[in-house]
Amino acid sequence: MIREAAARLEGHARRTPMLTSPFLDEIAGRRLLVKAECLQHTGSFKFRGGWSAVSALDEDTRKRGVIAYSSGNHAQGVAMAAAAHGAPAVIVMPADAPAMKIANTRALGAEVVLYDRAGGESREAIGDRYAETRGLRLIKPYDAPQVIAGQGTAGLEIAEQAAELGVTRGDVLVCCGGGGLTSGIALALEAEAPGLRARPCEPEGFDDVARSLVSGRIETNVRTSGGLCDAILTPSPGEITFPILQRLCGPGLVVSEEDCLRAMALAFARLKIVVEPGGAAALAAALFHGDEIAGEAVVAVCTGGNVDAPMFQEALGRFG
Amino acid sequence: MIREAAARLEGHARRTPMLTSPFLDEIAGRRLLVKAECLQHTGSFKFRGGWSAVSALDEDTRKRGVIAYSSGNHAQGVAMAAAAHGAPAVIVMPADAPAMKIANTRALGAEVVLYDRAGGESREAIGDRYAETRGLRLIKPYDAPQVIAGQGTAGLEIAEQAAELGVTRGDVLVCCGGGGLTSGIALALEAEAPGLRARPCEPEGFDDVARSLVSGRIETNVRTSGGLCDAILTPSPGEITFPILQRLCGPGLVVSEEDCLRAMALAFARLKIVVEPGGAAALAAALFHGDEIAGEAVVAVCTGGNVDAPMFQEALGRFG
Repeated sequence: MIREAAARLEGHARRTPMLTSPFLDEIAGRRLLVKAECLQHTGSFKFRGGWSAVSALDEDTRKRGVIAYSSGNHAQGVAMAAAAHGAPAVIVMPADAPAMKIANTRALGAEVVLYDRAGGESREAIGDRYAETRGLRLIKPYDAPQVIAGQGTAGLEIAEQAAELGVTRGDVLVCCGGGGLTSGIALALEAEAPGLRARPCEPEGFDDVARSLVSGRIETNVRTSGGLCDAILTPSPGEITFPILQRLCGPGLVVSEEDCLRAMALAFARLKIVVEPGGAAALAAALFHGDEIAGEAVVAVCTGGNVDAPMFQEALGRFG
Repeated sequence: MIREAAARLEGHARRTPMLTSPFLDEIAGRRLLVKAECLQHTGSFKFRGGWSAVSALDEDTRKRGVIAYSSGNHAQGVAMAAAAHGAPAVIVMPADAPAMKIANTRALGAEVVLYDRAGGESREAIGDRYAETRGLRLIKPYDAPQVIAGQGTAGLEIAEQAAELGVTRGDVLVCCGGGGLTSGIALALEAEAPGLRARPCEPEGFDDVARSLVSGRIETNVRTSGGLCDAILTPSPGEITFPILQRLCGPGLVVSEEDCLRAMALAFARLKIVVEPGGAAALAAALFHGDEIAGEAVVAVCTGGNVDAPMFQEALGRFG
């Protein structure tokens, strides 16, 4: 399915670069390869899953339209993919999502429905209701095979690009919310680069995946909002993603929000890329948690760059 | 020579991506392709010319070492290329260059000699003196065939990448100092993409190339320092580059410093890349001087991303 998704994405998704810096290698204490998915269309890897899911629909379903719920990156990915396929799109977003993400989703042609993340109706319930009353096809953010297959195309690229740079063994650190990207990458690496192992990276207080991998069952976060890393504040790993993560991934890594801001400032200075807090968790783990990583090289996926200017200025002001 | 340089750069220089955004197309009023050379090693295209020049030296010359004068990007490019080839490097830099550029050049292993850009001995005189007394080979920043050939490899990539995106006619806007990159790209396009035409872009007050193209002879800027666009504040086009620019380039475009800061903020928001003021001149011309451009598509080269955090924060604060 990942290879089929890659064929559908060909010429539409960007093959994002694998970046390096001798200055970052020194901080990480090993060779560090950075997969810059923030340079993907719509500023995050989510475009891959959105395109994969929309392009897999039959013509009639596509015409009726799609619906998604998302803190912003899946929203933009689905909105852009839907627009390119001529499919109407409704996106359910938390009212406290970054202003840029909400504005972009609207500008990409989607109808945006806001909800209160901290209380009230769940986004799943809202999504289901719209899907039913309007005949829209729900594209879940991570717990859906075609979405996982789309995100997995990043894993195919990582396997190839790491091999080109001489890296065939080591950990691939992935910023992890519900586990769609991490499980997709893990499946791709299993097939194409068995010496590389995916590991989920999460912010403190939202480490449901790390705890689930330890306990062996799906754990849930106490908090569901309020962190800087809005892109990966999902409550728990998915029903489909968790068994994949359990079978294929190494232990989870947990970083502080300060680690993420510091990693953003270093990505600015050394890689010239813009990374959002939640998209910097894996880079932060590679740079500041080296003692929890083995091997001579590590890959970190910078998953998104959709950060408002004031937050980016804060990261530079504190750590630039 | 450009194709030979490309062969020497293979596996060492990065093939930088060609980025796009529907939001930027709307501002530009046409399709806009952005060649992100800020993602090159050392954060600018200058690594290409540095690697081309150092790799073309014979073993004995390389062992004695190289010298370069540069406001910072050529400095880092030569320093990193020299280090990779085991060649000692002395770099002559203006004392008012961005702190990050001076620090990086030192960290890449070069010996840095600072001079006062506004007065006193010229950098050429200092460079010549060191070259003579220490037996170092001078690598000029732009007026040198192997350097121009190295920068021209970006033009080969532009020709290929633009064709992949269906663009074979239009202007290729290039941030221009002494004309090394612009002339290298112009030569590459002449051979590989004759429907694409290079055009130099400069900041107000430092528009020596635009004026030289109008008058037909090498013109010089009155000011030699003080602008935000430190990367492209050269006094005049080169003896070698100017005839190439004259033969192949379209009219120069002149942008304000404010245009550059605004373009930096848009590159942050829409492309997720970090661009320095001088590296944003071409993007600024594409976005804000569309009436001076013809055709349905335009290419802009973002030439560098070596900007200190406070300057980037200012760009975001004013235009983010």
